[in-house]
Amino acid sequence: MKKIHELPTPCLVIDLDCFESNLDIMARYTRECGVGLRPHAKTHKCVNIARQQLAKGAIGICVATIAEAEVMLRAGIRGLLITAEMVGEPKVSRLIRVVAEAPETLVVVDDVRNVDELQSAAHAAGIHIRVVIDLDIGQNRTGIPPGEPALRLANRIADAKNLQMEGISAYAGHAAHVVGFNDRRATSRRAVAQAIETRDLLEKNGHEVRVLTGASTGTYNIDSEVDGLTELQSGSYVFMDVEYRRIGAKDSPVYRDFAPSLCVLATVIHRSGDKAIVDAGLKAFSTDRPFGPEPLEASGVHYEFAGDEHGRLVLESPSRNINLGDKMRLIIPHCDPTVNLYDRFFCVRGDIVEDEWPIMERAKGSPYF
Amino acid sequence: MKKIHELPTPCLVIDLDCFESNLDIMARYTRECGVGLRPHAKTHKCVNIARQQLAKGAIGICVATIAEAEVMLRAGIRGLLITAEMVGEPKVSRLIRVVAEAPETLVVVDDVRNVDELQSAAHAAGIHIRVVIDLDIGQNRTGIPPGEPALRLANRIADAKNLQMEGISAYAGHAAHVVGFNDRRATSRRAVAQAIETRDLLEKNGHEVRVLTGASTGTYNIDSEVDGLTELQSGSYVFMDVEYRRIGAKDSPVYRDFAPSLCVLATVIHRSGDKAIVDAGLKAFSTDRPFGPEPLEASGVHYEFAGDEHGRLVLESPSRNINLGDKMRLIIPHCDPTVNLYDRFFCVRGDIVEDEWPIMERAKGSPYF
Repeated sequence: MKKIHELPTPCLVIDLDCFESNLDIMARYTRECGVGLRPHAKTHKCVNIARQQLAKGAIGICVATIAEAEVMLRAGIRGLLITAEMVGEPKVSRLIRVVAEAPETLVVVDDVRNVDELQSAAHAAGIHIRVVIDLDIGQNRTGIPPGEPALRLANRIADAKNLQMEGISAYAGHAAHVVGFNDRRATSRRAVAQAIETRDLLEKNGHEVRVLTGASTGTYNIDSEVDGLTELQSGSYVFMDVEYRRIGAKDSPVYRDFAPSLCVLATVIHRSGDKAIVDAGLKAFSTDRPFGPEPLEASGVHYEFAGDEHGRLVLESPSRNINLGDKMRLIIPHCDPTVNLYDRFFCVRGDIVEDEWPIMERAKGSPYF
Repeated sequence: MKKIHELPTPCLVIDLDCFESNLDIMARYTRECGVGLRPHAKTHKCVNIARQQLAKGAIGICVATIAEAEVMLRAGIRGLLITAEMVGEPKVSRLIRVVAEAPETLVVVDDVRNVDELQSAAHAAGIHIRVVIDLDIGQNRTGIPPGEPALRLANRIADAKNLQMEGISAYAGHAAHVVGFNDRRATSRRAVAQAIETRDLLEKNGHEVRVLTGASTGTYNIDSEVDGLTELQSGSYVFMDVEYRRIGAKDSPVYRDFAPSLCVLATVIHRSGDKAIVDAGLKAFSTDRPFGPEPLEASGVHYEFAGDEHGRLVLESPSRNINLGDKMRLIIPHCDPTVNLYDRFFCVRGDIVEDEWPIMERAKGSPYF
């Protein structure tokens, strides 16, 4: 039986007890609310995790890329929603192959030119594609503006014989990480209200809106209260990260609805004075946030990035001894782009390594490009 | 014959003409200076590139991790210098296997406890390990202080029957990116002077210093003027990046000694108003620098990160039309951690895709962990 301290570092370690508890909490919450859960797999990129989410009642899985869709489908995972626009080649051809195999697949659209492109490809392949309108409810990224522009797009889709309009995707990424529950709720409410109005406008004009999908881990218990949201896309709840812990919960300044289940395990490769250098740096953590990782089992220690393969732990008032060769667990700053750096998860219960799950099947020798 | 616009995006694209020119320029420069070149493979993690560097006269290859050493060795690449301390298990056992197969391998040490650990493992395996002293010449990361502490470490190595002291590694990471050639030269000179003094001290005390290794792409033509540096570790010169371009050269405000040969190819998946959204975001570029990628073939366009899979191009005064579905090449902000995000390079000449090189052999189905 392999122990955690025998693992090669740096590596990703899932604490199975915390992880399974996170899955259970979200499954129970959405069941009790009567809202669907189609968790986002861009967080984990892992078929083993998607399978567990489905087993606990998820209605499907969101993916962000065509490669993620292919990996999931190859593993028999169905009910996919592709949350980024499939524009141009080779994306459209790959989408056609996915939909030919899994006709229930949903894909977002936000532009009449893309509608025409998909219609043409679907027609040539003799298949139908189910689409949802990607609505820009304030993130200023992709998406069509709410109201009349969305209605015009819905009309165009209705005219496209090989496309079937299923509903609206209204993801408010700008609301996900607003610090403070009340401010977050206000931001999300303003955003989602536009989706509701657009849904009403579409239905008034004869379009059936079966799907209204949105929400993040930061807003799961905000958006679920909105009458009309049919499903949540939340993904990060399986792992959590330093960023989500900082945004605060309904009843606490630290967001503890879900437990941090994912860490990077690192080795102390240098120890002198008040510093410890670990073998986990820019290549081991995403660096897109203004804060770094945090030690799971030590306080009074501050992490600084110190190069591609190096992190510097400044031992300000360390709560425990930190020695050369020590293995340390570090809570990751931002889960999705950190997972993206690795080939696999090591899954531990206590200090026993129970399992190993490939990320995008790379660790199984099946590169995903 | 595949064309560049047929590639799946986001992906890494090497412009072979620029890349080969970079290899030639550095090979010629080091040959003319009479200094060795042991380029750092942490930049590219690619055996195809390491082979070309060796074919053009490199004396060996630097690696930063034991996994990189294993990948290189499996491909028959010899003359490895491992530039990070191998502390604890499983690193030490893996090092022993590497050295058993390739006895010329060099590994850095900076601590008597690590000397004892390596001596004990080498003795048990019945092999000898060649070590170089990792000197901290101002980076405040790993490394032992110059002067007496380094001498004491050298004495300890001399007492370790299965270790052979080969020299000193003096990498001044803090000098690599100093903006302005004169300031950079001053910083590097101060740093490297400590290595020269330490070398003299060691030699005066009977230690032979055959190797004195250091330098970055930022200081290749600074450190090479130092009498006594036996080899350069420069790695980024093969690709360049936005960061290196900004530091300035000996004779120009833009560092143009080497050409930017590596880009991320992205697709415009949304186009409205003065924005274009591309499919390359936090998972497609490293974000460790305060600036983002820069379009290779368009000016008047500013890139902003807009999520894991999204980048926002703000079209301030675009020098060309940017349309939905366009493929765009973006110069990467920082090459090493960006390469780390991908499984392979696509190699183009003009707009023809000539080759595909795996990164860490992952794209060949051999995950490297």
